[in-house]
Amino acid sequence: MNAADLHKDAIVIDGLICAKWERALFEDMAKGGLTAANCTVSFWENFEGTVRNIVEMNDLIEESSDLLIKVRTTEDIHRAKQQGKTGVMMGFQNAHAFEDQIGYVQVFKDLGVGIVQMCYNTQNLVGTGCYERDGGLSGFGREIVAEMNKVGMLCDLSHVGPNTAKEVIDESKKPVAYSHCLPSGLKEHPRNRSDEELKYIADKGGFVGVTMFTPFLRAGVNATIEDYVEAIRYVYNIVGEDAIGIGTDFTQGQDQNFFEYLTHDKGYARRLTRFGEIINPKGIRTVGEFPNLTEALLKDGFTETQVRKIMGDNWVNLLREVWGE
Amino acid sequence: MNAADLHKDAIVIDGLICAKWERALFEDMAKGGLTAANCTVSFWENFEGTVRNIVEMNDLIEESSDLLIKVRTTEDIHRAKQQGKTGVMMGFQNAHAFEDQIGYVQVFKDLGVGIVQMCYNTQNLVGTGCYERDGGLSGFGREIVAEMNKVGMLCDLSHVGPNTAKEVIDESKKPVAYSHCLPSGLKEHPRNRSDEELKYIADKGGFVGVTMFTPFLRAGVNATIEDYVEAIRYVYNIVGEDAIGIGTDFTQGQDQNFFEYLTHDKGYARRLTRFGEIINPKGIRTVGEFPNLTEALLKDGFTETQVRKIMGDNWVNLLREVWGE
Repeated sequence: MNAADLHKDAIVIDGLICAKWERALFEDMAKGGLTAANCTVSFWENFEGTVRNIVEMNDLIEESSDLLIKVRTTEDIHRAKQQGKTGVMMGFQNAHAFEDQIGYVQVFKDLGVGIVQMCYNTQNLVGTGCYERDGGLSGFGREIVAEMNKVGMLCDLSHVGPNTAKEVIDESKKPVAYSHCLPSGLKEHPRNRSDEELKYIADKGGFVGVTMFTPFLRAGVNATIEDYVEAIRYVYNIVGEDAIGIGTDFTQGQDQNFFEYLTHDKGYARRLTRFGEIINPKGIRTVGEFPNLTEALLKDGFTETQVRKIMGDNWVNLLREVWGE
Repeated sequence: MNAADLHKDAIVIDGLICAKWERALFEDMAKGGLTAANCTVSFWENFEGTVRNIVEMNDLIEESSDLLIKVRTTEDIHRAKQQGKTGVMMGFQNAHAFEDQIGYVQVFKDLGVGIVQMCYNTQNLVGTGCYERDGGLSGFGREIVAEMNKVGMLCDLSHVGPNTAKEVIDESKKPVAYSHCLPSGLKEHPRNRSDEELKYIADKGGFVGVTMFTPFLRAGVNATIEDYVEAIRYVYNIVGEDAIGIGTDFTQGQDQNFFEYLTHDKGYARRLTRFGEIINPKGIRTVGEFPNLTEALLKDGFTETQVRKIMGDNWVNLLREVWGE
């Protein structure tokens, strides 16, 4: 099967997109052949703000029902594939939206949220993010992990601090994931993970989605899709072919205000980092160029089966295990 | 001057009361000769819940305006003394009510809140309390301390974890306090402070209010007012006569539900501790028995000037320095 046919036939999952949610983006998802994507609906927002974002996303899915379906189960992902649509998996990049209510975990699950990152860059009630000193998982955090296990919600650790991340891996009775990360073996960065960390999560039955955010890639803003594949290969060599997937971190359509929001604590307080220029690797600058990734993986020597696993099958298996359906 | 006259003449400040706010208690405050008290209006409540508690307290102060006045400045404390009323200083036992908004510090100052404990027993956005592993003051917490310094709000550390407490002492540009604590030199307990900790806060210009909660006293539920004075003497020997005051932790009129609320994380989640029987030391079981404390301090050998300092003058000096008025 050639690359184009394989991409068309495969289940293609993007483990993290936080683009501007609008019709143009959904059309580009169709062009890119995306079967489903983890779409961020909460960063710094509290409960109420997050519910509003979900309402907005529900409206968008309804308005673009020719292109989108809402995903609550892996069956929905297969349905999206059959119908030639893209499945929207609603996800949080911060457990802040749970506020101090363990019961909000079930509430958000009922609203269709299947993936929640425990901390976003800084300390919250659950633990601490990767841009400040990390005292580990709190007692309340342990209760949140147990509740997420119970309701079937994936614990995402991408922006979580190293101590909190390790303790979530140990605490969780279901597999957990870095939905979008890069190896610090290729470039040192607070957001990147060491070989030991990547091995640890895989050994514990967890999962690694590889991102391509150029500030964290060795080649930086000059990176090409081949540099992205290099990172995928690097992670693959550590975690093996069943625990790896894609998590691009596409921010397509977002403006400078969005990045200012992300890079300040709580969205407005102290500055945590500066990204500099935001540009995706050449060859996969837009969601619509997703088929190039399948081609590049084949070119790098991955087998058809391995490519299918990396592009989506592994994500589906992980989510079925966590969601239970 | 005999003990009764001294008590009547002195400014008497209780650095922590979390009683049931009702007319009967305010009458007992009058009987006890209280000039002013730090009255808790927030434990686990969020912004909205705390504002509601403040509204309730405002109503109570208005209804009992023959007994109470609201304190915003140390001038108000002197006014309370002149008028023979008790000044209500509204305080929080948890910075949780600030939620993720630095601007809420000024909002609560405007509402009359002059004393805020950084953490209550567990982790919040600012730091961690004394009943779980403590990773220290967060980046957001440093911003909150700076804002509290700016608006003139006392940082209280009584229920704060040892690492966070030390870092608040170091971070704050104004004196900070343990408003109600006991020495672990007399009894080991997560809520009690070591000699080193007591010396550290005093050396940095801070303040220690001594509490009498019997579960943390050496004599336990059998404690008498003499045991309380023993603890005051112990702290006095470490921090000196200018950095010490009273913070009883009276919970008069509260029922079992209240203690269940206090001893569970967020007011409802995992249990943090069990107090067992709640009974104050014999001789000072109720707020109305406050004059006995002046007598017991004199009997223990404190001079009149020292008693005045301990009973209230030191609190007033501290608050004037922090509040700036």
